[in-house]
Amino acid sequence: MKWWPTAMYCCTHAAVMANLILDGENLGFHGFMVQLRDENGSCMPGIEIGEIGPKINAESTNIGFSRFTHVRVPRFNLFARAQQLTPDGKYIKPASKALSKFKYISMMQIRVEFVSASYDFLAKAATIAIRYSCVRKQGYKRNDRPEEGENVVLDYQMQQYRLFKALSLAYMFYWNARYIRDYLGRIQQGMMEGDEKASEEVPELHATLCGFKVFAAVTAQANMEELRRVRGGKPATGMAAYLVGKPLTLPKVGEAAFPGFRGPTGRKLLVELLQDRARRLAVKLEGAFTAAEQLQPGRTFEEALNCCAVSAWRAAEAHAFYAFAANNLSSLQAYVKDPSVGKALERLFELMALQVISEKGADFAGVLGEPHFDLILKSIEELLAEIRPDAVALVDGFGYLDRHLHSTLGLYDGNVYEAIYEEAKKSPLNQSETMLGWEQLAKIVDLGMLRDGRKEQHAGVSVSSASRL
Amino acid sequence: MKWWPTAMYCCTHAAVMANLILDGENLGFHGFMVQLRDENGSCMPGIEIGEIGPKINAESTNIGFSRFTHVRVPRFNLFARAQQLTPDGKYIKPASKALSKFKYISMMQIRVEFVSASYDFLAKAATIAIRYSCVRKQGYKRNDRPEEGENVVLDYQMQQYRLFKALSLAYMFYWNARYIRDYLGRIQQGMMEGDEKASEEVPELHATLCGFKVFAAVTAQANMEELRRVRGGKPATGMAAYLVGKPLTLPKVGEAAFPGFRGPTGRKLLVELLQDRARRLAVKLEGAFTAAEQLQPGRTFEEALNCCAVSAWRAAEAHAFYAFAANNLSSLQAYVKDPSVGKALERLFELMALQVISEKGADFAGVLGEPHFDLILKSIEELLAEIRPDAVALVDGFGYLDRHLHSTLGLYDGNVYEAIYEEAKKSPLNQSETMLGWEQLAKIVDLGMLRDGRKEQHAGVSVSSASRL
Repeated sequence: MKWWPTAMYCCTHAAVMANLILDGENLGFHGFMVQLRDENGSCMPGIEIGEIGPKINAESTNIGFSRFTHVRVPRFNLFARAQQLTPDGKYIKPASKALSKFKYISMMQIRVEFVSASYDFLAKAATIAIRYSCVRKQGYKRNDRPEEGENVVLDYQMQQYRLFKALSLAYMFYWNARYIRDYLGRIQQGMMEGDEKASEEVPELHATLCGFKVFAAVTAQANMEELRRVRGGKPATGMAAYLVGKPLTLPKVGEAAFPGFRGPTGRKLLVELLQDRARRLAVKLEGAFTAAEQLQPGRTFEEALNCCAVSAWRAAEAHAFYAFAANNLSSLQAYVKDPSVGKALERLFELMALQVISEKGADFAGVLGEPHFDLILKSIEELLAEIRPDAVALVDGFGYLDRHLHSTLGLYDGNVYEAIYEEAKKSPLNQSETMLGWEQLAKIVDLGMLRDGRKEQHAGVSVSSASRL
Repeated sequence: MKWWPTAMYCCTHAAVMANLILDGENLGFHGFMVQLRDENGSCMPGIEIGEIGPKINAESTNIGFSRFTHVRVPRFNLFARAQQLTPDGKYIKPASKALSKFKYISMMQIRVEFVSASYDFLAKAATIAIRYSCVRKQGYKRNDRPEEGENVVLDYQMQQYRLFKALSLAYMFYWNARYIRDYLGRIQQGMMEGDEKASEEVPELHATLCGFKVFAAVTAQANMEELRRVRGGKPATGMAAYLVGKPLTLPKVGEAAFPGFRGPTGRKLLVELLQDRARRLAVKLEGAFTAAEQLQPGRTFEEALNCCAVSAWRAAEAHAFYAFAANNLSSLQAYVKDPSVGKALERLFELMALQVISEKGADFAGVLGEPHFDLILKSIEELLAEIRPDAVALVDGFGYLDRHLHSTLGLYDGNVYEAIYEEAKKSPLNQSETMLGWEQLAKIVDLGMLRDGRKEQHAGVSVSSASRL
């Protein structure tokens, strides 16, 4: 039974991936065109199609399930670009086995779109949150002088920490989506032209892009309060390379050779730190895996790997984040021409890298000491203050119109409270003078008390003249 | 305008907290009973009550807004347990200023309930996720021998890392809710009996419990994939005490004096590490605050604090988590009598503390080195394997019935897939033989092609005999 295909309930045909078994021999994964519904809209014989029922999100989209019972499709329905099946049952292998991997490409393209969608969701959330944070006031500037008024919440450093993190990640996803889409396009082009070398990159690319699905499901929910996890991937950077890399060593804070964590040398150092972290974790994973294998001879590869799965997850995340950050920095150098725009985006890059290093501190224990971490926190706090004046322009730069955001809080003109009130007035409960459902309540409340209360409680005179009751 | 009070739309009266201004003098925050609706269910004069409209959650509860325009309430409606207003306009101060803080208590009780609710939501999510993880299979045990079958996902270490973290936090919240509720009850009792000393603890308790609101709003969403943030609070443990505390020093891994991170001495060490982290961050916050004050003379307290708000947030979180963990360990010693139950819960405690230390590594850079962090990760991986056999019993121990969980995935009997399919069949889209809305689709699809396809595609013979087409 297949669960989850979006919109399958109202599809007439499906591209079904299934094993091709010929005279008992399993020839592996092939594509078949299968007709789901007949000309009356009923299911084809042997096919059951349904819809999976209530979902938390996407209520407007039908999500399907299907079950096939002994369905026979004609030979013609086999996808046969690379391999063939003759009418007398002979299987003709693809000219190049490598090129048959082409069928993964559409899945990979969808996975890249998750990065792009993550940018989109996160950028929208950041736009709404940053705009609203310029309007929303909370907390007196001075508790001893309430008459000086309240702060807009965007001026609070903690608010900045969360918002600007989301903002910098949104930009990072933007650059990476662009970078990876171009890269994948080149591979696809190469494979269509029969370039076997291009197709060699497919398995690793496939594995890397799988990470995006998890990552994107998480980031789709991104908002200023939730944003903490950072994952991703880079095409074709083998982790094996780490095992021969050299450890990074860093001068102490205060020594002349220490470049600091900001500016051109600082940004280079940040990428090196992320690379060194990926290297360290890969080396440790290698060690943990070997130990797990040797501890119980006869353990399978899968069993040994499962004994150090947390290490493996951390190594994979570190690898992916290094690649993400490196792509981001390269993209700024390659694509951004205006120096003042470049400066604003470099600050976002520095903030994002420093936040991740600070939040994943244990991974850097071998190279960074307490004074480094103290300086990192100080640099973060400086960056927040520096990014503050650009924050609204940076979200305006995403270019969303009010009708894209569907948000009273994120209105471009900032007239938030008027908009919320106008929206609330549309609620069906607010359409009548009298409370909706009062006839039910009237049976149980003390109406006499309410009537008496009405004689005592009035309106219409100003509070100052009424202060003495 | 007041926004957000739950269910206010159908309330007849409200307890309104407002300043009492007498002859131009602001006497501060007082409580007033205000009638919202008259005996016909209409708003009282000068009062506007409405409902705020669509919400993502809690659609079934009305959430209100209100606006008062020159509303006059009779003197009798002033809450007057502690202070009085005479008919001729004289204000009689409360006998004890401290005891007037009593009005915060109901708000604090609600905040404690957030801890309890967080336990409840998280425990339910953990129950569903752990039960389903015993049923759900994914991934071959050996990729080279698919016939050996697939793993249940609970056997994956990464799955354990997330699930058991949620599980251990759920238990931690359980113990803390119990502990804090008792504590608050004792203070309230003391204040009702006129004990001024009890009331002195109210302001700090109030501040600490404020953290729960943020924390609980986050944890209500808790599930196995999201659970990363840990906050909370402990009644009446002043952070100022940290400023005179001594730094913790730890023997190196491998030295005889190093107790390890597990067992009775290990658990004691974990609490000490969390306490030392809270101390370090408090000391650093003190330093950062002083520096911020001195950098620009004339800065207000609020401005200086905002320059180190990230430091302050981290210090507050560290303080709260230390208190949470300490309460947890004490509770196990105080309440759990069965030694084997105690062992199972101690493992959860160790896991939770080690996960937090590992994930907040930068905060421990002054006391833990890379070998410590390596050992911590190793201990986590050991604990996951040890907790695995108890996992189902530990969630069964929460005692939820199927009707509490409303979840096909979390069914006690584990017949998950049958239940999902049965539920899906109830969808309105699945009630007719023909696709709902086919008449619309029929106008645009090629019915002839579907008719032809029906002649070629069949069902009813087994796949093996049909493999040659």
